[in-house]
Amino acid sequence: MTGPVESKGYFVRLLALFPLICLINFSSVEARTLYHKWEVKYEYKSPDCYKKLVITINGGSPGPTIFAQQGDTVFVELKNSLWTENVAVHWHGIRQLGTPWSDGTEGVTQCPILPGETFIYKFVVDRAGTYLYHGHYGMQRAAGLYGSIIVSLPEGVSEPFSYDYDQNIILNDWYHASTNEQAAGLSAIPFVFVGEPQLIVILWYPSLFIFAIQSLLINGRGKYNCSLSTASGSAAGVCNTTNPECSPYSQTVVPGKTYRLRIGSLTSLSALTFEIEGHDMTVVEADGNYVEPFAIRNLYIYSGETYSVLVKADQDPSRNYWATINVVARNPATPTGLAIFNYYPNHPQKQPPAAPATGPLWNDTASRLAQSLAFKARQGFISTPPVTADRVIVLLNTQNKIDGHFKWSLNNLSLKLPQTPYLVALKENLTDAFAQDPPPDGYDFANYDIHSVAKNVNATSSNRIYRLRFNSAVDVILQNANSMTVNNSETHPWHLHGHDFWVLGYGTGKYNISCDWREYNLVNPIMKNTAPLHPYGWTALRFRADNPGVWAFHCHVESHFYMGMGVVFEEGIEKVGELPSSIRGCGESEGHHRP
Amino acid sequence: MTGPVESKGYFVRLLALFPLICLINFSSVEARTLYHKWEVKYEYKSPDCYKKLVITINGGSPGPTIFAQQGDTVFVELKNSLWTENVAVHWHGIRQLGTPWSDGTEGVTQCPILPGETFIYKFVVDRAGTYLYHGHYGMQRAAGLYGSIIVSLPEGVSEPFSYDYDQNIILNDWYHASTNEQAAGLSAIPFVFVGEPQLIVILWYPSLFIFAIQSLLINGRGKYNCSLSTASGSAAGVCNTTNPECSPYSQTVVPGKTYRLRIGSLTSLSALTFEIEGHDMTVVEADGNYVEPFAIRNLYIYSGETYSVLVKADQDPSRNYWATINVVARNPATPTGLAIFNYYPNHPQKQPPAAPATGPLWNDTASRLAQSLAFKARQGFISTPPVTADRVIVLLNTQNKIDGHFKWSLNNLSLKLPQTPYLVALKENLTDAFAQDPPPDGYDFANYDIHSVAKNVNATSSNRIYRLRFNSAVDVILQNANSMTVNNSETHPWHLHGHDFWVLGYGTGKYNISCDWREYNLVNPIMKNTAPLHPYGWTALRFRADNPGVWAFHCHVESHFYMGMGVVFEEGIEKVGELPSSIRGCGESEGHHRP
Repeated sequence: MTGPVESKGYFVRLLALFPLICLINFSSVEARTLYHKWEVKYEYKSPDCYKKLVITINGGSPGPTIFAQQGDTVFVELKNSLWTENVAVHWHGIRQLGTPWSDGTEGVTQCPILPGETFIYKFVVDRAGTYLYHGHYGMQRAAGLYGSIIVSLPEGVSEPFSYDYDQNIILNDWYHASTNEQAAGLSAIPFVFVGEPQLIVILWYPSLFIFAIQSLLINGRGKYNCSLSTASGSAAGVCNTTNPECSPYSQTVVPGKTYRLRIGSLTSLSALTFEIEGHDMTVVEADGNYVEPFAIRNLYIYSGETYSVLVKADQDPSRNYWATINVVARNPATPTGLAIFNYYPNHPQKQPPAAPATGPLWNDTASRLAQSLAFKARQGFISTPPVTADRVIVLLNTQNKIDGHFKWSLNNLSLKLPQTPYLVALKENLTDAFAQDPPPDGYDFANYDIHSVAKNVNATSSNRIYRLRFNSAVDVILQNANSMTVNNSETHPWHLHGHDFWVLGYGTGKYNISCDWREYNLVNPIMKNTAPLHPYGWTALRFRADNPGVWAFHCHVESHFYMGMGVVFEEGIEKVGELPSSIRGCGESEGHHRP
Repeated sequence: MTGPVESKGYFVRLLALFPLICLINFSSVEARTLYHKWEVKYEYKSPDCYKKLVITINGGSPGPTIFAQQGDTVFVELKNSLWTENVAVHWHGIRQLGTPWSDGTEGVTQCPILPGETFIYKFVVDRAGTYLYHGHYGMQRAAGLYGSIIVSLPEGVSEPFSYDYDQNIILNDWYHASTNEQAAGLSAIPFVFVGEPQLIVILWYPSLFIFAIQSLLINGRGKYNCSLSTASGSAAGVCNTTNPECSPYSQTVVPGKTYRLRIGSLTSLSALTFEIEGHDMTVVEADGNYVEPFAIRNLYIYSGETYSVLVKADQDPSRNYWATINVVARNPATPTGLAIFNYYPNHPQKQPPAAPATGPLWNDTASRLAQSLAFKARQGFISTPPVTADRVIVLLNTQNKIDGHFKWSLNNLSLKLPQTPYLVALKENLTDAFAQDPPPDGYDFANYDIHSVAKNVNATSSNRIYRLRFNSAVDVILQNANSMTVNNSETHPWHLHGHDFWVLGYGTGKYNISCDWREYNLVNPIMKNTAPLHPYGWTALRFRADNPGVWAFHCHVESHFYMGMGVVFEEGIEKVGELPSSIRGCGESEGHHRP
């Protein structure tokens, strides 16, 4: 195994030095059709030095980065070579204009892909920017099924900022328990949470049985403390810190040059702070949209978000520097994730002399809120939102119980996806495939106390959906609240499929529907596909329901979505073209149910 | 957890004392329709004191025993509540006369059942006897998805032997690795085998990485040596020998009474020997067929076989006795499996004073062959076989490699099931669903040396099938050979779906097609659905191809079938009635492929 791994490491370093090879290739051709052939299977990998089964794409986790140019049509021919598990892959940030059936969201836009079967995703990458892809079935994203999509500008069009090299950095958290084990814990009574052990004891008492072990990964590499592994479940040889698969990612830089780092997070749980020792970063892009540049020392990044930052290699070139990620928003039980910012020609794995940064205080919510508020659309690239909304949906985010099982709910409904994908059910008017009554547009504003544990924590399981008038302007106010633990409110990064939304505002406390809209930024709001909801706060989003299809909108914490924290929007279903038969095959969408 | 488990234990003991409750119920009614509602899901269980995820049916592993009466129609409404895995369940020994689509063999008779979906198996139990059920998709049987089917005689019909009580004992071996981990090892280069560690080092050198831990289970209970668990991968609390889930199965007996023990084995790998300290056993039934009674001290039982033995509680009633299972045919690395033969009113868990039996020598092939040869059909219940065969198929069983992966083959073809179930493909003449050319009826008899490692170990992957003339008499000669290890030939229990076969003979060495048939027992051969192929030997079987459908015939070692050790027979496909649409939904059997 050593040979190939070392070769790969070498290849990565080579790429780090000559990243423009790709860009040059891309800018020399017109909009194209790109074919990718992927095989998804289980393989033993040691991303954090601990050997376990990982879902790989073409042998890797993260999977291959998709490099494309704005306007390209991307085909991904995905073969499911898992043994008994189905699969589906979502193209996160790609709006799927005209191809809602390629969104890859099991239960919403397609049936799962069976073992042995091949499914072809086809979509246009209509905008330059930094995007992601990942499993969207069960908790398979957490098993290693994820990667990046980098879309460059058309030939002759320049970015409104300059840099010498372009690099991709994908962040994750990583568990040693299998996704089945994680799901079993989440479904159990007593509940067993997937991570951040210290906090669980507080949050989920009396669920004291903790099995999860977590590391942080940068570009698929982390470092677990193998000396803990005897106690925590590893056989001799299972954990090996000298395994080259888990040597830290090293970002080689040439002194004096400026780097565009495209940073994406697909953590299962963790909100992160990213920083590079001794280097300022200038944020220029978020979720594929240009940001009015501003300098930061640390970037808060939530699961499902992407950012581009510019970093100049302007420090003492005789040494290397730490690039670090740390958990915030939960009292971290997970060690700092480390990569090396390597000044050429120092050895890529040469340890920096300083101690790695431990990041800002984990519970400094004000600092995270301030950074969220600091993002504005870049001058000259502002997309002005509709001045008013046609409909306002307020979603109260609460932690609940259903039949003794822990759940998350919106306005007291916990999402349980139907057996038949919504897209098929709606297009073919299969009205018994899911409950037809709409979910509520609000909650009991007057009486619900968001700062206390709810008096009645019980919620209802639901597959009802929001049906939006086509082309209407929709506001969604995400309202946070106390969880089921006293003095606790969690952070939820919400991701919308099929759209970007304008981020009109963030606030603390209970959103006041009669006046808080006056504080909205309607001048230069940033557009994103994922935005955080901070503890005890609210986040106001606006989008235009102009993309015919059915779209999930959910908390991007893997376990929270598994526990029901999402809603579904339909818009313009009558404008959706003929569905490909390949998305069918489950529930009432099986052929024999066809009219 | 303690409460319900103890209650269950109590209930089991209660049943042990009053087994006739069920029989009385059954014998008082006419042939009926029995409905069973099953939910299949993952749960944490500790069958051998080591806590791991197990596939349960209605919360148990083994699943609920199906009690029925000859002629009953059984419905099993199976809901798949696994998270991302499909499932299929085979009714082992039930011939599925007129219902070939209910055989539950993924890839042969049905598409797998998707998560969240419900599939209804419907079949008639046409003959009294002892049968089994188990997962027949991937390696899910090894995850705990198995159980027993007990079919009693019609009212007014008596067994040709007498006993006071009827008890069911199901045997298994048990691994701590998940089925994904097992499959990953079997698919890996270098190969990693699932069990019997000592032997692997000999057999599969240089594949020295061993992860599997094995226990033996009697009625779902075994005892792992938890003191080994720190080294082998258990966290504190994962292995607990005082967990009531793994207290030994205790068979309570009333002194002087005679017990019919229905013993079935669904081991993944192990051939077993079963004995009860100080008690003779009289074999009376095998795979649902009456056997000319004969007395034994130990019963050899291979995966997929069932036997009924009569045991009289005629020993000193002041103490308990060990019932033991031990591994044979491989140099055992697994401790003896233990149950307690409990003389009432001693405490059911009171340890017998003697040391448990360690069984006959593991490599005493002659003794196992002798017992195989000792079975004859019971006088008065003989089904006479056709005097001659219309077709003779000789299947050379070899261990092979394909692209560096270890495989098992028949006449050099290693079975890889197609994406579209054969039953659908054949019924609808989807000729591109699998290769249409027939596999060979024999091998190079003259030149193949069964006592040596093959000169060319490479084989071919194939989904070709044997198409049999309807109602013809077919002989299958299973020919064993040396594996890829010098001086090694393994034991393979072969199981035929949809039929019983006559066991015409067993021999050693190479079957001589011109004369060995003269030694066949055509007078009173036993009929079975599973028969062993002994090391370096041959087994001659005959069956009538009179059951319209498509039927798997394969080695019942879970990993061997996974590695390709099986063939498929078609017979009378034109006589098969209209297929239920519920078996469709994969490959070319999806609705949109229908003509």
